[in-house]
Amino acid sequence: MTNRIAYQMAEELRKASKVALFSHVSPDGDCIGSMLGLGLALEALGKEVYMYNSDPIPRNLSFLPGVEKIQTELPAPFPEILLFVDCTDLQRVKLENEVFPADSLILNLDHHISNQNFGHINWIDSQASATGEIVYALIRLLDVNLTQDIATNLYTAILTDTGSFKYSNTTSKTHQIAGELMDSGINFADIHHHVFDRTPQAKLELLRRGLNQLQILAQGQFAMMTLHKFDFEEIGAEESLGEGLIDHARTLEGVEVAALMKEVNSSVIRVSLRSNRWFDVNKIASHFGGGGHKRAAGCTLDMPLEEAQKLLVQKVEEELALGRSC
Amino acid sequence: MTNRIAYQMAEELRKASKVALFSHVSPDGDCIGSMLGLGLALEALGKEVYMYNSDPIPRNLSFLPGVEKIQTELPAPFPEILLFVDCTDLQRVKLENEVFPADSLILNLDHHISNQNFGHINWIDSQASATGEIVYALIRLLDVNLTQDIATNLYTAILTDTGSFKYSNTTSKTHQIAGELMDSGINFADIHHHVFDRTPQAKLELLRRGLNQLQILAQGQFAMMTLHKFDFEEIGAEESLGEGLIDHARTLEGVEVAALMKEVNSSVIRVSLRSNRWFDVNKIASHFGGGGHKRAAGCTLDMPLEEAQKLLVQKVEEELALGRSC
Repeated sequence: MTNRIAYQMAEELRKASKVALFSHVSPDGDCIGSMLGLGLALEALGKEVYMYNSDPIPRNLSFLPGVEKIQTELPAPFPEILLFVDCTDLQRVKLENEVFPADSLILNLDHHISNQNFGHINWIDSQASATGEIVYALIRLLDVNLTQDIATNLYTAILTDTGSFKYSNTTSKTHQIAGELMDSGINFADIHHHVFDRTPQAKLELLRRGLNQLQILAQGQFAMMTLHKFDFEEIGAEESLGEGLIDHARTLEGVEVAALMKEVNSSVIRVSLRSNRWFDVNKIASHFGGGGHKRAAGCTLDMPLEEAQKLLVQKVEEELALGRSC
Repeated sequence: MTNRIAYQMAEELRKASKVALFSHVSPDGDCIGSMLGLGLALEALGKEVYMYNSDPIPRNLSFLPGVEKIQTELPAPFPEILLFVDCTDLQRVKLENEVFPADSLILNLDHHISNQNFGHINWIDSQASATGEIVYALIRLLDVNLTQDIATNLYTAILTDTGSFKYSNTTSKTHQIAGELMDSGINFADIHHHVFDRTPQAKLELLRRGLNQLQILAQGQFAMMTLHKFDFEEIGAEESLGEGLIDHARTLEGVEVAALMKEVNSSVIRVSLRSNRWFDVNKIASHFGGGGHKRAAGCTLDMPLEEAQKLLVQKVEEELALGRSC
């Protein structure tokens, strides 16, 4: 079935003269890399291509070939074909169906199982590790020469969504495609450097403070990192810079549960939770009115920091004790 | 040519009834994973296999299937076939040729370009990212069923020697093999967790102290991390635990050169150096009587810590200034 849909989508793109591509807010490597890879491929076929993302491009993706072509304004007028990349629904682009001309053909290319099938043609492959894998298949169907620029974008898409081939969404097909992308002569070591190896000083300073405020509890099974409001203020760091810091706590030997407590203000504490092998952090987060998955969840506690820490430690230790008795 | 050698080696192994495998001192994921992968494959062919490594197995590799079979004593008596895995020369096993019976057949399987061809049959492929790639080819030649246990070992070998498909030794063939290994049903996410995600508490404590003693110099281009003798003593950490910490300095945005100064004692300072894109750290290391490569080098300064820091900063700033004027 995917095959028929794939051919249909390729056929529509072949016929088109103008195409607009859309990718989601809070853009990541997969949506930007997939959009650029496909955009450059369509340009190579002589199409007029418009690429849209409403948000700033993350700094670690600013090296991507063609990134300067991405527009933050909607196309005016809309072309006949609107193609959505890596978007589960139109809310991910902060758009409503009514914005588009009634005769628009909406194409929907995604790997999220929760995709809402909002397009006229929906190519959804939840087996793909990244939308970049689907774009790769589409470009092969379109018979476009895989240039270094296209391959760099698709490799980045796959690299970021698989955590460098680490996350469990990676398949043998992912590796096969990565190998074929490498054959186009991309400088993949440089891509890794751009994507992963450029830590802002403010982030390392947050890590330094986080490590100074790291507590190892519950006989080494629970690691809790704390960042105060003044930490962010003194560094001049956005709250989003704290992302990923929790992994330094989670990956400690012997640790099963990790928490990062971010003091938003004197009575609002944002809590991120991670676990490694068996502990259900979603249960903890739900208990405090938040949610997420078994291995990654979050909640917000409306109380002073010390109180929040005490409550969280208590609850985690309780659940750890239950787990151990199973 | 490699083909003829490969068939020869496979033929000798097919004929043998007993084989001893050797891997190098200070073992890493490639030598242990390759030895175990091949050892299990030869056992599957009904051979009696002896696996030798003189050193303790690193903790992050202790999960490898078959690891309990590795012996720290030399085989007595030596079997007819001695196969060396991932060893450039016999010094890497701390052995001399004279130890072996005169009629031993020595097989040499390696991917290091500097390999000394010390065997009777030498299968050296410097294009292979890891010896694990060569073992994979050998196992295919031997027509052994790729079990999960064998695949787990070979995947680990490749994973560690490529830094999770990041280092420039990675090729499209590496990805192709990784994909084929995954098809045997290995739990690769668990392998990543075992290999990379279990930081000893002492290591995180070293990082904490290293970050507290990090200096950003030369307008942000040079990051110098320092660890005192008392840091190691107070934590009870081996010097080797400091490995990798320098990457936190190297990957800082804007940094071109990074140094880690380890105070061995009050007059011996061990210096690790790394660079990102153009700076030749080998030049700095050589200047101080050390050596290495352009992007990774080291030296030892026989003087008090403060003096060593001063000298190093001066020399690095000098070279950075020269570089900038090019």
